[in-house]
Formats: sequence, structure tokens, C-alpha cells
Amino acid sequence: MDGDALNPDCVFCKILGGRIPSVKLYEDERTVAIMDINPLNPGHCLVLIKTHAATLFEADAADLAAAITTAKKVATALMAALKADGLNMLQANGAAAFQSVPHLHLHLIPRFANDGKGFDWALTPGNRDEIVANAEKIKSALGGT
Amino acid sequence: MDGDALNPDCVFCKILGGRIPSVKLYEDERTVAIMDINPLNPGHCLVLIKTHAATLFEADAADLAAAITTAKKVATALMAALKADGLNMLQANGAAAFQSVPHLHLHLIPRFANDGKGFDWALTPGNRDEIVANAEKIKSALGGT
Repeated sequence: MDGDALNPDCVFCKILGGRIPSVKLYEDERTVAIMDINPLNPGHCLVLIKTHAATLFEADAADLAAAITTAKKVATALMAALKADGLNMLQANGAAAFQSVPHLHLHLIPRFANDGKGFDWALTPGNRDEIVANAEKIKSALGGT
Repeated sequence: MDGDALNPDCVFCKILGGRIPSVKLYEDERTVAIMDINPLNPGHCLVLIKTHAATLFEADAADLAAAITTAKKVATALMAALKADGLNMLQANGAAAFQSVPHLHLHLIPRFANDGKGFDWALTPGNRDEIVANAEKIKSALGGT
């Protein structure tokens, strides 16, 4: 690992730098996949980018592309290996979203029928005027693209 | 839209083809971002890929890279526009993972402090031997990469 890409205070950077052990699944130029040590379900793993970036907002586009490519590769193997019925990919930004480690990572969480592990919600139609008003704010922030 | 890329039985393909209306935020060559009509929180939106693929496993790598690039762009605007405190990116594959529409999409869910909307879980350390055994199965399915 290139030490310049790592943040000395970051737990995942310590893993990437070999200072904290991990159970590694996969590695390429820009990403590493490791097992989650607090698995929500058997096979729960994480895709990390090698260059420290706290969130989706700070991460480099090429690193993000590499991360989702690795996610596809590892998730495909995981489904076959553990005979899972489904899989959630989850990524969190900020404490309000329950991000535990401020280093961009994709959770790959295998799902088994009726495992009761969540990630569903009651579909409740929103107020259309509010949805349109929020869309206008977001489009304005996008700069009219 | 290139009709050949669409699946006539897919709700999101009908949106992409203009046969079902949507509130669009952003569009580029490979992706579209639209508001979710059943928002979990104000500003909840979806990034769709334009070429039909049911899940992460079937999607083209270039489409996945484009989707996460669009997610970064739209999520950044969304955070600023709605003064959100955080954001979850969630993607579901299969009914066991609560995928509602079998056309790859990334949920962008803005989070507000203590909004009670979930995506957290109690961190419970897994059994190390089981984690290592699962990792061996996944690595085997990855073909030793």
C-alpha cells in the first residue's frame, strides 16, 4: 500500500496498511474486500477503497467505479458460495446514516428468505407537491444539469 | 431511449421510455435519477441504469460505474439542497433483500439526525472460525483471485 493514500487515524487504513489484521477476500489496484467482523448475516463483507476518503462525497470517481465493480464480483461469488437468496448493498455517509467508520465502504449483506434482518419499509406514497418541490431544490443544487 | 435496452414488462423501463411519468432530477448517457414516489424521507430518490438489468449480478460494469458516479453527483446536490445530516445508499437484489422492482437502482436516502428510519444494527462480533470458513468458501467461488 502507498502510505500517502492512508490516514494514520483511520481503522480501515490501518487494515489496508497491515497494522490491524483482517480476513481478506479479494484485492486489486484500487479496492480490497474483507469479511465484516460483526456480521449481520453469515458472509457479510465489506468493499474498501484503498485511498482514504471518508464518504461518497469525497471519494474519487475512479475509486467508486472500482468499488462497485469489486462489489459485483465479490457479491456474485458470495451468493454462490453461501447459497444466499438475495443481497443488500448498503453504504452510509455520516453519523445520522449510521456510518461507523469514516472511510468509504460498501456493505455486502447476503440475505436468506425471511431472515428478519430488515432493510425494508412500508411503502407510503409521498405528497406529490412536496416531492416536486424537493426535486426543484435538488435540481437547482445540481446546477440545472 | 433506445427501445432495445428496455424490458416491456418492467416498471422502471416504462418510466425510462416515457410511458409512466416520473419526477426527473438528472439524466446522462447511461443513467437517470428520479424522485421516489414512496419516500422514506424527504428527498429520497433513485438512480436507474438505462439498459435493463435486474440486479447487480447482471448489470454491465460500465453501467454500474455510471450509476455510482451519478449517485455521488445527485447525493451531493441533495445534501446541500435539503440540509440533510447524512445519506444512505442502498441497493437490493432479490425478494429476500426486499427488491421491489427487478431493475437495478440505487436508493439515495437522505438522513436527518435521530430520524428513526433505521439501517443500523447492533454490532455483534461473529465467531471467528465461522467467518474464516465463510471467507474460504467465497474465495473459492472467486476462483482464487
